[in-house]
Amino acid sequence: MAVGSNKLGVLPVVDGVKLSAIASGIRYADRLDLVLIELSTGSNTVGVFTQNAFCAAPVHVAKSHLQKSNSRYFLINTGNANAGTGERGKLDALECCNALAEKANVKLEQVLPFSTGVIGELLPVQKVIQGIPRALASLDESEWMTAATGIMTTDTRPKAVSAKIKQNGKEVTICGIAKGSGMIKPNMATLLAFIFTDADIEKDLLKNLLTQLVNRSFNRITVDGDTSTNDSCLLVATGKSDVTVSVENLEYYSAFVEKLDFVFKELAMGIIKDAEGATKFMQINVTGGKDCKECLDVAYTVAESPLVKTALFASDPNWGRILAAVGRAGLKDLDVDRITVDLGNIRLVESGGLADSYTEAAGQAEMNKEEITITVNLSRGEAAETVWTSDLSHDYIRINAEYRT
Amino acid sequence: MAVGSNKLGVLPVVDGVKLSAIASGIRYADRLDLVLIELSTGSNTVGVFTQNAFCAAPVHVAKSHLQKSNSRYFLINTGNANAGTGERGKLDALECCNALAEKANVKLEQVLPFSTGVIGELLPVQKVIQGIPRALASLDESEWMTAATGIMTTDTRPKAVSAKIKQNGKEVTICGIAKGSGMIKPNMATLLAFIFTDADIEKDLLKNLLTQLVNRSFNRITVDGDTSTNDSCLLVATGKSDVTVSVENLEYYSAFVEKLDFVFKELAMGIIKDAEGATKFMQINVTGGKDCKECLDVAYTVAESPLVKTALFASDPNWGRILAAVGRAGLKDLDVDRITVDLGNIRLVESGGLADSYTEAAGQAEMNKEEITITVNLSRGEAAETVWTSDLSHDYIRINAEYRT
Repeated sequence: MAVGSNKLGVLPVVDGVKLSAIASGIRYADRLDLVLIELSTGSNTVGVFTQNAFCAAPVHVAKSHLQKSNSRYFLINTGNANAGTGERGKLDALECCNALAEKANVKLEQVLPFSTGVIGELLPVQKVIQGIPRALASLDESEWMTAATGIMTTDTRPKAVSAKIKQNGKEVTICGIAKGSGMIKPNMATLLAFIFTDADIEKDLLKNLLTQLVNRSFNRITVDGDTSTNDSCLLVATGKSDVTVSVENLEYYSAFVEKLDFVFKELAMGIIKDAEGATKFMQINVTGGKDCKECLDVAYTVAESPLVKTALFASDPNWGRILAAVGRAGLKDLDVDRITVDLGNIRLVESGGLADSYTEAAGQAEMNKEEITITVNLSRGEAAETVWTSDLSHDYIRINAEYRT
Repeated sequence: MAVGSNKLGVLPVVDGVKLSAIASGIRYADRLDLVLIELSTGSNTVGVFTQNAFCAAPVHVAKSHLQKSNSRYFLINTGNANAGTGERGKLDALECCNALAEKANVKLEQVLPFSTGVIGELLPVQKVIQGIPRALASLDESEWMTAATGIMTTDTRPKAVSAKIKQNGKEVTICGIAKGSGMIKPNMATLLAFIFTDADIEKDLLKNLLTQLVNRSFNRITVDGDTSTNDSCLLVATGKSDVTVSVENLEYYSAFVEKLDFVFKELAMGIIKDAEGATKFMQINVTGGKDCKECLDVAYTVAESPLVKTALFASDPNWGRILAAVGRAGLKDLDVDRITVDLGNIRLVESGGLADSYTEAAGQAEMNKEEITITVNLSRGEAAETVWTSDLSHDYIRINAEYRT
């Protein structure tokens, strides 16, 4: 199940980026499970990674390689997370990187490994290594959809978003792919997102943009509150277009950041719309907070409440559960009489109880929608935050009782 | 669904306590929904209540009355939580208390009101008031089971636990009842628990005992992380036996506290075993922590992880999900190589990965049990905490998609 349609359209070439995906038999036969992405020399790459203390072996290796050298290849496998595999896991990831580095004639540190799938099983290194020549041979600048499909696990559909910025006769392209459906509450990044642009952007600025935009997209989504061991989000600027994006070029800079923000947010929302068992997409706005932290505390408490999520699944305008979640979010000195809760444009709660103007028919009509917005105004400050989540359905239970992540 | 058997045995009389339950038609016809408990004069009563900021009208009234006077009556209704009902809700609760106070010839402040059920609907005050004479007329010291049944909502079975302490020819009795099945992560107390003893205990000591024991029982359980608006836990000492429990009488004091602790824990675990949709009962021990807070952070992160809970439902020894939950619990400088995770007596995780001695067959055998213990040793201190929880099943979704709390 998934929310909304999934018309991806034609994804544009990003000069300096080539992709391929092959079936290497890591967990299932005849399923795309090994994705290779080649970056042209001179590309700048920055990344953010999971903050889970049990972070996976490829995350350790990718972080270390990213510090040492300019990346030339991303080597991504599904079917096996290479997490909870100790020292052996790191050696396995390095062995795969080394095999690719030798074949492609680059340094070991120029290869970044990524894995997603079952936690706690050893990576079938030989299958990966045997697949590398085929993956190298099929690299192509138009294989976005193949790559977006190749990184999927419990995802029901590929996620890819692109944007173009044209100004003064010059053009920059952005294209990103992501995967993730369960074990989703990214803390710095989500389980595998790769965003590319052919703009020329120096590394400090690129890192700064990544951090800011991740905090407005992937770090604002939750399916089940479970932060994965493998989350990684990479942003690459190949510099192959003739456009330099910098803060000095303010007009172009603003247009670029706006589009990049769009790509990050659309990919993040795409993950929620394809969340495990999702039948609904919910945006939770918390406004009027003293600071961002308390807005996030309220937003995540509502977003992760199993009672709110099952009411959402049932299309039940069960405002009592929303109110109970707001009340237990841990905010000190909360004046409940000043809080308002809106469902779409309908006032649900005011003065500590149901709003006088509320009718069950209006609430029901709003809840029947596939995409729902809840706005909680704390009425005690200027801070605001937004979080996206999905509902909790029978299919979520079925998928997670059957699938061993 | 529920875990384990439910042989309650014969519940003993607690001298000074009488109970009754009647059907007053608050939400459903012919269902016990109004429970009355009478305490003899001279009883000492202490209570702890929900810390949810949106706490219900009866909680406000009960807290206020408890400060002003010695309680003589508990008036408990199901079918309606009288929460999210603003000022009107408080007036409604007071009107019910007043009707009982007049009929029973006690002060208004000697009546404590409790409500549980749907949030956000006005209490049908007249139905409650009309039921009061019948409830008064049927008060009896042996009606424990009727009262335990009368406070149920989505509970599938009544919860009652008793204990006796005999020493030097003198006897003290303890008996408690509780309800709660969903919206369970008590923070100070759980949704309606009442524990009674005929011992004579002065109020400060009684309050001290309540706080300590709640922190080892009701404050250590979670079904869905959702703290209710109506949680209340009351402890009453009628003083009708000829035994005074005090710290001066150390030998008797220890025996009494041990039994009282037993009653609190059994009631709390009884709530988890009858949690909405529960098919499994899970005890999570976290040992070797620097302090209790970090032990609780880890224990609750594991206990509330939808991925751990669905694996539990599937009897899947999915240790990777446990490890991922421990890793995202927010502990600073966690040395994952020193952490061990045991499933029952079986070592699951050591040195950052699967233990060498682990076999899938042994893990599977342990997970097939109805009651499961997970022990996480953080190996960096002396603190330890224990939390109890249930699994996340299809029935949880069904119940909460159908029932409007």
